[in-house]
Amino acid sequence: MTTQKIQQVALVGGTHGNELTGIELIRKFLRHPYLLKRKSFKTIPILGNPQAIKACQRFVDYDLNRSFDPKNLEVTDDSTTYEKQRAKEIKKVITSNKVDCIFDLHSTTSDVGLTVILFNHNAFNLNLAYYLQVIHGLKICSFYSEGQQTSFLNTLCANGFAIEVGPIAQGVLDYSLFEKTQHLIENIFDFIVQWNSGLMSQSESVTVYKKVKPVLFPLHSNELAGFIHPKIKNFLPIKTGDPLFITFDNQVVTLTETSGSGLYPFLVNEAAYYASNLAFYLMAKHEIAL
Amino acid sequence: MTTQKIQQVALVGGTHGNELTGIELIRKFLRHPYLLKRKSFKTIPILGNPQAIKACQRFVDYDLNRSFDPKNLEVTDDSTTYEKQRAKEIKKVITSNKVDCIFDLHSTTSDVGLTVILFNHNAFNLNLAYYLQVIHGLKICSFYSEGQQTSFLNTLCANGFAIEVGPIAQGVLDYSLFEKTQHLIENIFDFIVQWNSGLMSQSESVTVYKKVKPVLFPLHSNELAGFIHPKIKNFLPIKTGDPLFITFDNQVVTLTETSGSGLYPFLVNEAAYYASNLAFYLMAKHEIAL
Repeated sequence: MTTQKIQQVALVGGTHGNELTGIELIRKFLRHPYLLKRKSFKTIPILGNPQAIKACQRFVDYDLNRSFDPKNLEVTDDSTTYEKQRAKEIKKVITSNKVDCIFDLHSTTSDVGLTVILFNHNAFNLNLAYYLQVIHGLKICSFYSEGQQTSFLNTLCANGFAIEVGPIAQGVLDYSLFEKTQHLIENIFDFIVQWNSGLMSQSESVTVYKKVKPVLFPLHSNELAGFIHPKIKNFLPIKTGDPLFITFDNQVVTLTETSGSGLYPFLVNEAAYYASNLAFYLMAKHEIAL
Repeated sequence: MTTQKIQQVALVGGTHGNELTGIELIRKFLRHPYLLKRKSFKTIPILGNPQAIKACQRFVDYDLNRSFDPKNLEVTDDSTTYEKQRAKEIKKVITSNKVDCIFDLHSTTSDVGLTVILFNHNAFNLNLAYYLQVIHGLKICSFYSEGQQTSFLNTLCANGFAIEVGPIAQGVLDYSLFEKTQHLIENIFDFIVQWNSGLMSQSESVTVYKKVKPVLFPLHSNELAGFIHPKIKNFLPIKTGDPLFITFDNQVVTLTETSGSGLYPFLVNEAAYYASNLAFYLMAKHEIAL
């Protein structure tokens, strides 16, 4: 296993402008940069989407966290949207500072607690995620699919991942969730110090919830036609025949496909996903060797 | 006590376009108008702010629920904002249908449960609120202040009040909260049937939380500078010296003024209030004779 040292971390908050937890954490680190000081690596705090933060909206023109596909980043045309320009600016900051690890702080209206979302299963990410799991009991999710390119901010760098905390409404701060997230970041820094010293103790494997598919709301004439069934909870396994939705006229919609060894809902009832009729993701549990 | 019969109710949802509970309830009643049928009165369902509902935003140009001051409603100038025009349209519907009772359905990111907000303390409102309290254990709040004009939708009519349900994020539906709100509306209809038959049994008094003052977030250079203290909860009494906020640099801000016989926070951490730096309201408990 390669254990290349991490030298330059980027900590990003406000990639979505109405997710205040990450935004206020980054502002705190900008006010108190000594809080980021560690012996073996440096950390730059970045506010992802300043215009969206100002407007307290997820984005201004287009979702910044869907703007990092390499094709977009290569286009030199200046007439594209604010977020497509901002994605290029962020890439420039990442490249010019030789950033080799990115953490992107998100929050969600979904009751996910503290979670990690992987976009790369390398040894650093898996070991760090496992370390955080031991401390916080958090769930490790993955949107990684070998050979598939994504357009998330974390695409810019193999090391690091997204952090999702919830439930919290958009445009709202909660002291306890802020504290927990700050604690999580301190633990990430502790781990990197250990990783860079080669002192990392390791488990044999780690449990990862990998994305299987998105589940869309029932629609009627292109309009929302139902609620997520109250039995659907994040990480609570469901099987064929289990309820997924209740329509507005009280019909229960069930899972028809084969569920195999269990399917686990994730990001249940995230407000920003309603625009694309996405109710939640179904994930499958995998043991991944460390 | 006058017990004038209610003849025409207006049930409004989506006065704020991102409060989906009320919007989907009104849509349900529009699809199934027989659900509104009662012997002694009629009910019209109204979607308050169709453009804001389409955009899934609180409002397009200006808060519709602050647009019903009589001055605005008299202005004949057509060049005013969408919501000011919409307020006039709603007033026209209310007047032409001889509506004598309005219920305005709201939801909030604040953990208020089911609550009633009075803008008028007449016998009908107090007796109905008491009836709902007996069934649901809900809290009765009041923004009414004798002789003071407000600009809320409920200003249009002495009978009826606003209903706030939470906690729920903006732009999100929750089956259980929808069911509870639907149940509450059924109970309102049951009460009106009884009221119109003169069969109303009455308590001697009812407990009402009356607005004392808004409490603003601590600011630093016009920017938010702290969190609501985690001990601040809706309807949990506070007294002089109790914590109100924790600043981002971990200073505790306490209540300095005299709390008298107890002050009760209400609408703690409502997302829409951040724009005006409003953290919560302080209310005082009153026993009001029925």
